[in-house]
Amino acid sequence: MEDQNCTSGFIAVHLGAGYHSTVNQREYKAVCHQACVQAMKMIRDKCSALDVVTTTVGILEDSPFTNAGVGSNLNLCGNVECDASIMDGRSLQYGAVGALSGIQNPSKVCRALILEQMKGSLSCGRIPPSFLVGNGALQWARDHGIQETATSVLLTKGALSAYRKHKRRLSAAELSSPKKPSWTNNHVRLPCFDAVSIPTDDVVDCRDSPLDTVGAVCVDASGNVSSAVSSGGIALKHPGRVGQASSYGCGCWAQNRNNDGKPSVACSTSGCGEHLVKTLLAKECCDSLLQSDDGAAMAIQRVFTERFLESPFLASVDEKLGGALVLSHCLDDGVELVWAHTTETMCLGYMSTNSSTPKFQLSSLPTSAVPGKSLHIQGIHCKQPP
Amino acid sequence: MEDQNCTSGFIAVHLGAGYHSTVNQREYKAVCHQACVQAMKMIRDKCSALDVVTTTVGILEDSPFTNAGVGSNLNLCGNVECDASIMDGRSLQYGAVGALSGIQNPSKVCRALILEQMKGSLSCGRIPPSFLVGNGALQWARDHGIQETATSVLLTKGALSAYRKHKRRLSAAELSSPKKPSWTNNHVRLPCFDAVSIPTDDVVDCRDSPLDTVGAVCVDASGNVSSAVSSGGIALKHPGRVGQASSYGCGCWAQNRNNDGKPSVACSTSGCGEHLVKTLLAKECCDSLLQSDDGAAMAIQRVFTERFLESPFLASVDEKLGGALVLSHCLDDGVELVWAHTTETMCLGYMSTNSSTPKFQLSSLPTSAVPGKSLHIQGIHCKQPP
Repeated sequence: MEDQNCTSGFIAVHLGAGYHSTVNQREYKAVCHQACVQAMKMIRDKCSALDVVTTTVGILEDSPFTNAGVGSNLNLCGNVECDASIMDGRSLQYGAVGALSGIQNPSKVCRALILEQMKGSLSCGRIPPSFLVGNGALQWARDHGIQETATSVLLTKGALSAYRKHKRRLSAAELSSPKKPSWTNNHVRLPCFDAVSIPTDDVVDCRDSPLDTVGAVCVDASGNVSSAVSSGGIALKHPGRVGQASSYGCGCWAQNRNNDGKPSVACSTSGCGEHLVKTLLAKECCDSLLQSDDGAAMAIQRVFTERFLESPFLASVDEKLGGALVLSHCLDDGVELVWAHTTETMCLGYMSTNSSTPKFQLSSLPTSAVPGKSLHIQGIHCKQPP
Repeated sequence: MEDQNCTSGFIAVHLGAGYHSTVNQREYKAVCHQACVQAMKMIRDKCSALDVVTTTVGILEDSPFTNAGVGSNLNLCGNVECDASIMDGRSLQYGAVGALSGIQNPSKVCRALILEQMKGSLSCGRIPPSFLVGNGALQWARDHGIQETATSVLLTKGALSAYRKHKRRLSAAELSSPKKPSWTNNHVRLPCFDAVSIPTDDVVDCRDSPLDTVGAVCVDASGNVSSAVSSGGIALKHPGRVGQASSYGCGCWAQNRNNDGKPSVACSTSGCGEHLVKTLLAKECCDSLLQSDDGAAMAIQRVFTERFLESPFLASVDEKLGGALVLSHCLDDGVELVWAHTTETMCLGYMSTNSSTPKFQLSSLPTSAVPGKSLHIQGIHCKQPP
C-alpha cells in the first residue's frame, strides 16, 4: 500500500464495478474530480459525513456518464427506476429508496429519510419509514421538499441508444431460442416506452452496459463516517426490480468506532445487484474489517474470496460480479482505503484533507484474469500528519 | 424443553409477534390448525419444503384474522400493500415482493421468483430478479400466471374499521400537537382512500393494531428446510414503505445442512419491521444457531439479548418489538423449535410427521415483563423415533 499523509478528513467515490471504456476516461476522471473537490470543500467547512456523501453522490447522479440519476440504464419498458441508500455511521441510521422514478437525486431522499428517523416517532407513535419504493417514495420525496425531475432530463441520449441496442440484442436472442420463457413473451403486456423504429443491424453484447452503481465513503473532520450508493440498475431490468443499492447491508454500510479500539468503517458496493444482495457484501466487508487483525487489504481479500467468489449463496452463478470501496479510519493510524473487484474494471477517485487535488484510478483486472472468477485488490494507507 | 418423538418432517407457523386478543383465540387456533394440517399432508405427500411453506403461508394470507393478504392493515391512504419473502434452504434462493397491491397471496409470487431464478439466466444473459416491488411486481405476477385479486376481497370490514379508528386517533394526536411535522400536514396531497364519515368519538390506542406478519418454517420428508414471511405492514404506514418481510436476511432465512455437522436452520421473524431490518434478525438467529454449541434456546436468547435488545443499531429505540420462530434440524437429533418475542404475545402452531394433530400456543410475556424491553423464549425438542 502507498503511504500518504493526511488528516482524518477523507472522501472516496466510485463510478461502479463493471466495464469502463478507456474512451470515456476523461469524463470519468472529470466527474470523480468534481465530486471529490466539492466533498473536500464540505469536509473543510465541517459538514457532516452524512451531508458530504449525499452531495458527493448527488454530483455523480447528475453526470450523464454514470448509471445513476441522469443517464441511468433504462428498464425493460424504457423507463428510469433508481435504487439508492445511505448509512450514517454516527447514528447508525439507514435510508433507502427502490424503483424510484422522477427524482434526479435519489440520494437526497435517503438523507431526508435518515433525518426524519433521527427526529423519533411520528404523531401517534408511528415509526418513520427507512425504506420506501415506487410511487410512494416519489410522493414522500415531493412532500419533503425534493423536486421532481422531468423524464426528459433523466433519460439521456446515451442511455436511449444503449436501450435500443439491448432491445435489438434481446429480440435476436429470443428469435434464436423462441422456446425459452422470457419477459417479452406474448403474456407480457407491459406499458412499454415506445422505442420508435429500431434498425435490425448493430446487434451488441449485453455486457456493453458499462457501469453499475455509484457511491461514496467519507470521514468528516470530526471523524464520523458515512457511506452512500446509487444506481440505475441493470439494463433491461424488469420494472419494479430492486437491487443491492436499496438493500440493507448490501449496497452500503457505515459504523463509527465504539471506544473498543476498532476502526470506524464504511463501504459502498457495486456490481450485479442480485450477487451483492445474496452475499450482504457491504456489511460483510465492514464486519471483516472489524474482526481482522491483519490489515484492511487482508480483511477485504478474505471476504471477496470466502464470502463472495466461494459463497454457497452464489453456487449456481458462473460469473460473480462485484466490487467494493472500503474505508477504515483509526484515530492513531489515519485512513486505509481498499478497493476490490471481480469485474473487468472499477473506476474511483479519492482525496484527503491535506491533498491539493484528487487521485483517480481506472482499476483493471490483470490481462490474464477472468472476470467473475478472479479478484483484483488494491489500496492506500493515508497516515495522520505528525 | 418438552421432548416429543417425530420423524424429520415438521411444520411451524406464526401469526405474528405483537398483541393478540384472547377474544379471537379460537380463530387464531383454527387458522394455525388448518395451515399445519394442510402442510403436514403435503410433507407426507413428499412435497418440497419450498412448496409447503408457500401453501402454508397462503392459508394464513387467506384468513381475515391475520395481517397478511386478506385482512392486511391499511396504509395511510387506505390501501393494502403487502411485503413477503421466501428462502429455500436447499437452493439458497430467495424471492421477495414489496409494497405489492392486488395479489391475495404474495407468497406465491415469491415462490415463482425462486423457481425462475432456479432456471438460470434469462434470454441475452439477463439475471432474473429476486426482489420486485409495486406495480412492476404486480405485472410480473400476472405474467407468471398469478391471478389478481379485487380490492374488495383483500380489504376486510375489520381492517377498514381499524383504519378508521387509527385515522381518528391520528387526527386527535395532530390536533393536540399541531407543530409536529407529520404525513398528514398540508403539504401531503396523497390520493387517499375516502374514509367517508368518521365519527369523532371512539379514539383508540394505535397499538391496538393487533398483529404483524405471518410466517412458516418447514422441514420436508427429505430433510430440506424453507422459511416464509408475509405481512400487510404497519397500520397507517406511508405508501411504498417496505419492511422486514421483503428484506433479505431480515424477514426469513433458511439453510440446509452442509456436511459439516451443523444443523439445517430456518427462521421467520415478526414485529416492527424497521427494528427487524436494522438488526438483520432472521439471519442473525440462524447464524447464532450455526455457531452455537449450547443448544437452540441459548443461541436464540443470545441473539435477542445482544443483537436485538442491546443492539447499537436500535440505541435510539425505546421499545424494541420483535419475535422469531426458529427451527433447527439435525439428522441424528430431530427438530428443535424455539420461539422468542419481546412483544406482549406471539401466536403460533406446529406439527410433526407423527403427530395426529397440531399444537397451538398463544405465547405471552410474563405479567411483570415490559413489552419492548423484556424477552420471552420457549421451545420444544422433537426427537427422531428410535
